Amino acid sequence: MSEKKKTMLYVQTSGVNTPERLYSPFVLAQTAKAMGMDAKIYFLGMGVTVVKKGEAEKIQMGSFPTLKEIMDQTIKAGVELLVCGQSTQLLNMQRGDFIPEAKIVGAATLNGLVLEVDATQWY
Amino acid sequence: MSEKKKTMLYVQTSGVNTPERLYSPFVLAQTAKAMGMDAKIYFLGMGVTVVKKGEAEKIQMGSFPTLKEIMDQTIKAGVELLVCGQSTQLLNMQRGDFIPEAKIVGAATLNGLVLEVDATQWY
Amino acid sequence: MSEKKKTMLYVQTSGVNTPERLYSPFVLAQTAKAMGMDAKIYFLGMGVTVVKKGEAEKIQMGSFPTLKEIMDQTIKAGVELLVCGQSTQLLNMQRGDFIPEAKIVGAATLNGLVLEVDATQWY
Repeated sequence: MSEKKKTMLYVQTSGVNTPERLYSPFVLAQTAKAMGMDAKIYFLGMGVTVVKKGEAEKIQMGSFPTLKEIMDQTIKAGVELLVCGQSTQLLNMQRGDFIPEAKIVGAATLNGLVLEVDATQWY
Repeated sequence: MSEKKKTMLYVQTSGVNTPERLYSPFVLAQTAKAMGMDAKIYFLGMGVTVVKKGEAEKIQMGSFPTLKEIMDQTIKAGVELLVCGQSTQLLNMQRGDFIPEAKIVGAATLNGLVLEVDATQWY
Repeated sequence: MSEKKKTMLYVQTSGVNTPERLYSPFVLAQTAKAMGMDAKIYFLGMGVTVVKKGEAEKIQMGSFPTLKEIMDQTIKAGVELLVCGQSTQLLNMQRGDFIPEAKIVGAATLNGLVLEVDATQWY
């Protein structure tokens, strides 16, 4: 039991205009938690639109539940959601536009996180 | 000769609708093998369409050979091709839809691989 | 003062047809330099169009300066710009098509870099 818990970081750089790219980080972050790891998802660039209030409800693919259902399960599993503050400015979005579970952070945060975590995945 | 052989993992998250994104992991995986490394390519999300039977034959860019020729060279060079099972479900694709060299695996596989390999590249 | 300086590598695989994906690596590379790290940006696939002469001038988003202004600040901050030679061939571009600060390198370079640096970010 001496091994340190691993942390996996998922970065979502794609937005609601490419719905086929949005399920993977949520599914994989849930899987990471089930594997005994910590998991965080960082939304950057167009990715911030995924955690905009009301957007995940509109996305549904194949026989899968809506993205909102998958996102809610992911939050319940203890996965942390972080949003790039600079990206929200680039897209003229306001702090109140996002779901309350998504924490807005600065650009230095991502540079620090990718050095700290055990692995990062890019979507 | 005591240094362990390095392994490079390439993840293809883009599909046949963005042909300009598809050559890089095959070219780089071949280069990795020529550099004495092991190399694997993991197809996820829309990326699974790249290893759908009959698709790589249709893709050709600039003065390069078809993607099928590049893929065949890559397989011959000993690069392993893995396909995300959940993504095939998301896109309503069947096991028999894929080229025989592509091995379908579960979501836990990618989380494990990115921790095991020496570096991962995302396309 | 005994800790080695960290190096962050940013890989830009997206091109001028997706302007919303282009600011992040420049902003983050500048932030990395301000955090005391070394930073490099590698342009690959469609990403090479970002450092084509005259292209960054045409890109401007939200209340941000043009991409050219951000790129110039990034170069002045000491961030190195590398261009994948194979990608320029794939897109039928010539060596003289690129800004002089962008150094064209071979496919083996990226495989080597991702093993050497402390972390890589993919855009």
